Amino acid sequence: MNYKMVLSVLGKAMVIEATLLLVPLLVGVYFGENYYLSFLIPMAGLFAVGLPLSFLRTRDKSIYAKEGFVIVALCWVVLSLVGCLPFIISGEIKGFADAFFETVSGFTTTGASTLDSVEGMSKSVMFWRILTHWLGGMGVLVFILAIMPSAGAGLMYVFRAESPGPSSGKLVGKMRYTAQILYGIYVIMTFAEAILLLIGGMSLYDSVLTAFSTAGTGGFGIHDGSIAYYNNVYYEMVVAVFMFLFGINFNIFYLILTGNVLKALKSEELIVYVVMIVTASLVIAINILDTVGNFGEAIRYSFFQVNTVSSTTGFSTADFAEWPALSKGILLFLTVVGASGGSTGGGMKVARMCILARSAQANVRRMSYPRAVVPVKFEGKTVSHETERGVLTYFILYVAITCACTLLLSLLNAFTGVFDNFSATLACISNVGPGVTKAIGPMASYSQYSSVSKILLSIVMLAGRLEIFPMLILLVPRTWKKG
Amino acid sequence: MNYKMVLSVLGKAMVIEATLLLVPLLVGVYFGENYYLSFLIPMAGLFAVGLPLSFLRTRDKSIYAKEGFVIVALCWVVLSLVGCLPFIISGEIKGFADAFFETVSGFTTTGASTLDSVEGMSKSVMFWRILTHWLGGMGVLVFILAIMPSAGAGLMYVFRAESPGPSSGKLVGKMRYTAQILYGIYVIMTFAEAILLLIGGMSLYDSVLTAFSTAGTGGFGIHDGSIAYYNNVYYEMVVAVFMFLFGINFNIFYLILTGNVLKALKSEELIVYVVMIVTASLVIAINILDTVGNFGEAIRYSFFQVNTVSSTTGFSTADFAEWPALSKGILLFLTVVGASGGSTGGGMKVARMCILARSAQANVRRMSYPRAVVPVKFEGKTVSHETERGVLTYFILYVAITCACTLLLSLLNAFTGVFDNFSATLACISNVGPGVTKAIGPMASYSQYSSVSKILLSIVMLAGRLEIFPMLILLVPRTWKKG
Repeated sequence: MNYKMVLSVLGKAMVIEATLLLVPLLVGVYFGENYYLSFLIPMAGLFAVGLPLSFLRTRDKSIYAKEGFVIVALCWVVLSLVGCLPFIISGEIKGFADAFFETVSGFTTTGASTLDSVEGMSKSVMFWRILTHWLGGMGVLVFILAIMPSAGAGLMYVFRAESPGPSSGKLVGKMRYTAQILYGIYVIMTFAEAILLLIGGMSLYDSVLTAFSTAGTGGFGIHDGSIAYYNNVYYEMVVAVFMFLFGINFNIFYLILTGNVLKALKSEELIVYVVMIVTASLVIAINILDTVGNFGEAIRYSFFQVNTVSSTTGFSTADFAEWPALSKGILLFLTVVGASGGSTGGGMKVARMCILARSAQANVRRMSYPRAVVPVKFEGKTVSHETERGVLTYFILYVAITCACTLLLSLLNAFTGVFDNFSATLACISNVGPGVTKAIGPMASYSQYSSVSKILLSIVMLAGRLEIFPMLILLVPRTWKKG
Repeated sequence: MNYKMVLSVLGKAMVIEATLLLVPLLVGVYFGENYYLSFLIPMAGLFAVGLPLSFLRTRDKSIYAKEGFVIVALCWVVLSLVGCLPFIISGEIKGFADAFFETVSGFTTTGASTLDSVEGMSKSVMFWRILTHWLGGMGVLVFILAIMPSAGAGLMYVFRAESPGPSSGKLVGKMRYTAQILYGIYVIMTFAEAILLLIGGMSLYDSVLTAFSTAGTGGFGIHDGSIAYYNNVYYEMVVAVFMFLFGINFNIFYLILTGNVLKALKSEELIVYVVMIVTASLVIAINILDTVGNFGEAIRYSFFQVNTVSSTTGFSTADFAEWPALSKGILLFLTVVGASGGSTGGGMKVARMCILARSAQANVRRMSYPRAVVPVKFEGKTVSHETERGVLTYFILYVAITCACTLLLSLLNAFTGVFDNFSATLACISNVGPGVTKAIGPMASYSQYSSVSKILLSIVMLAGRLEIFPMLILLVPRTWKKG
């Protein structure tokens, strides 16, 4: 383990977080709020520790897979630990467990909250709360990568661990350039959404925060009742369409920008993602028709909720915990599948699901024709054994963590049922936020869970966001050996 | 597809079923019941079709994997279709869907029932109902194998597809001899249980049927309230211990019989299975302590219920649908894991779970040390890529079928919740029987499901029992090509 390099990158990340804390501080100044200390104290601490670390020099600049994973995992944990200080110091969230849960939920773009009401929250703290979504969205590390002066080839491992999806693909070759392009797309799309919301009459503050929350596929609401608060079809459609867009593999946008529109539209993952959303929206619309009254309203609610869950955002315009079994089942399924690889969304990812299906299909064929050579294909290419193995392992770990967390929550909490805990775990590991049962549905919160449970769910959110492996590697003793 | 060979084996299976129908017929004669026709009609039909088929002669006696799978799947479907006739003709079960569900549930040793009460059922029909468990237990096909005169090497595929578990292992080399040994162990253990129950004071009829139901890890009860009906600790302990034994890999018994006791006790699968059951029993006992009163009673109920679920039998002495979240969660987990490979139980199987865990562990290690050679080991041997791939594919298909069936049940039934459907699907694919929610728990039945849902669940039971692949291969169009 190259400790000096790990600490140096961590230091840089801390300095960046300190700088970013300036933004909610200024928002507070603008709105005349008296919460300077809530931001200044963590800023001071971050600078004090982060600056010296960031200047650590080492001859051995090599970063391998192991170091990459450790950097990513450590950064997210440390930045979350410090990031929850504004909530605690301002007193807007009581208790460490709740504040940590909220911050991890923010950075991991989960959007699960322990707050039963957010209406009384100050503008500056709320800004920080939702800024974490935006920062988490494309990954704090991609950000560092984009602006770091010494981004060598070794850092590709960081990118691989950080960038969502089984394979980020070599967009342009040089990592820094790639990161800048992805980030450019991200910023422009966020602006576009904010402007469209502004045009519709939403306030500047709400527009920006809603766009931040959508872009990161986060889902923290600025108001109780989430997007339903506005009761405005235009807002809902803007948000739904952008949730859909942020759930798409960013490679697609890059291809479109560089004129390869046809190639982009031929993407298997995109086709599956679109077909999945259209089918789910239609089936749910028909399923909730009786409850809602007419098909137009049914589509309005189903399209929004399908996109909120499949992009793993977690906004809501309806209490889907009250919907019929089929609709809840579909939303649970979409929770597990999640968004496309290479998007800001979470979940297992559509690409992985496709590879899983192809792998199973190939093996069934091999079983009945033992001598046939059957390759596993995806996006027109043969999937390497390494990728296939990675996807299968990811699937096993995803299921194993879900089972373990469900059982632990059942052990730690007497007042939630086993399926509440199951749905909560899925909502957290997939970074969706709300579950499908009443106890943890869109109109409820995670407040009833015990403090230990909140820490557990925070770890699960981090595991889901960082695609499991980086978190797992922290637990392997050999990782911490010198040399 | 070698149609002639497939039909010839199917014909033999039909003749055997016809012969076996004689047993409940004689039971009816003994008890003076007037249900001759219920058994004679299907017997006549089976002989009429099965005998000519069984005499089909073909030069090409070759049976490959494909034919093996097709034979197994076809036999189970056809024998179930005919096996439900006694229920329909006697009028003891109304409607085809219910009778078919009950028969498939019997042959697959699931033990799920659509009957709200069984107290009024005639002795002969009840005998047939529970005999199906015993026949299903070791597989009708192993039976055929054991008594078939022309059991060639090609039939190893049948055995491999039929025998539960990821790898049946070469016990003795010759398939026929192996099958006879397994069947011998099976018969002797069934007798032992029946005698122990008789000694305890249970009637002969109840003792035999309870032993049949336990041996097949089936779970159909002879009385409403299942084993709780007797309210007898001795019966409960005998049944619990035999459920445990029938959930063990039969290779273990073979090793013990041949004097390799130490080797048997070193079996990784056995150790995991025992540790799992002991841990689950203790945790659940502590968890239900408040409800039950004292630790002795708590252990009595938890030990029985843990064994009933992990062996996938499905008897009950307590309504675990009323237990706390943790206990229900553990029982759900045990439902998925199921019994040991090579036992009469269902589920994913402990051996597969071990291989999944080892495979994931190896891949995580490979990820952080890309150049290291990391073999996947189980039972002291390196697991072949073929076996590993088979296990991973099985896992994917198991999850996929569970998701699909849960969604379809949610579509087809308005009065059950999505988690009722989820639990019902798991209980059927793992051949356990009762689920953990009130709607389909041990004190409820599957009667509320629609007819189409019952057929669907029957298919899922068959898929689980036949370890998915044989059922799947029936759906591949290429399977039915000539040549």
